[in-house]
Amino acid sequence: MHDGFAKLPAPPYYAVIFSSKRRDGGADDGYDATSARMLELVRQQPGFLGAESTRGADGFGITVAYFEDEAAIAAWRNHGEHADARARGRNEWYEHFELRIARVERAYGMRPAGTPA
Amino acid sequence: MHDGFAKLPAPPYYAVIFSSKRRDGGADDGYDATSARMLELVRQQPGFLGAESTRGADGFGITVAYFEDEAAIAAWRNHGEHADARARGRNEWYEHFELRIARVERAYGMRPAGTPA
Repeated sequence: MHDGFAKLPAPPYYAVIFSSKRRDGGADDGYDATSARMLELVRQQPGFLGAESTRGADGFGITVAYFEDEAAIAAWRNHGEHADARARGRNEWYEHFELRIARVERAYGMRPAGTPA
Repeated sequence: MHDGFAKLPAPPYYAVIFSSKRRDGGADDGYDATSARMLELVRQQPGFLGAESTRGADGFGITVAYFEDEAAIAAWRNHGEHADARARGRNEWYEHFELRIARVERAYGMRPAGTPA
């Protein structure tokens, strides 16, 4: 994810806003490896546009994944390895999470000079 | 913001998704004080529903603020002190930011047992 920012087309498109609080699982609970694998997989999904993600030292994190349309979100939701990872998330990694599906209607930004839009 | 999670009504409502990369401004650049003041002000805005925010050690952060409707977003955008803070953000605090306005269509979550929804 280069500098952390997703490079997206003009709206409309969809956002999956996932906020979560990690359990105190230790470094060896498999979370980091699965996160990296999920990013690798979602990038191969038709209609995936990009994602942005961050987590603070307190274990609270926000990931926003962007998709062309609802069909692309549904296809990713139905991906078997992703379903397995979600189950581990519920059972092992997250103390609490919230997921919101939203239609992005407009967007703008400020980029450093010389950065491609 | 208690445990980091916003307590929101059932959709639909609106999300302002703000992702940003901080400049290396040092601890005394006024950012933290202004952030706290903006949170205090936005909580007083009619139609403000809640916000979630986090920033990683790399300076990349995501804040999502939730509002009842577009009119509430516009009113907050036109708040004078908020406009001043945005100008400082562009000129002093942020290296890069992206702002996306989205209509939340559905939501669900997993909370710890005993936590009010």
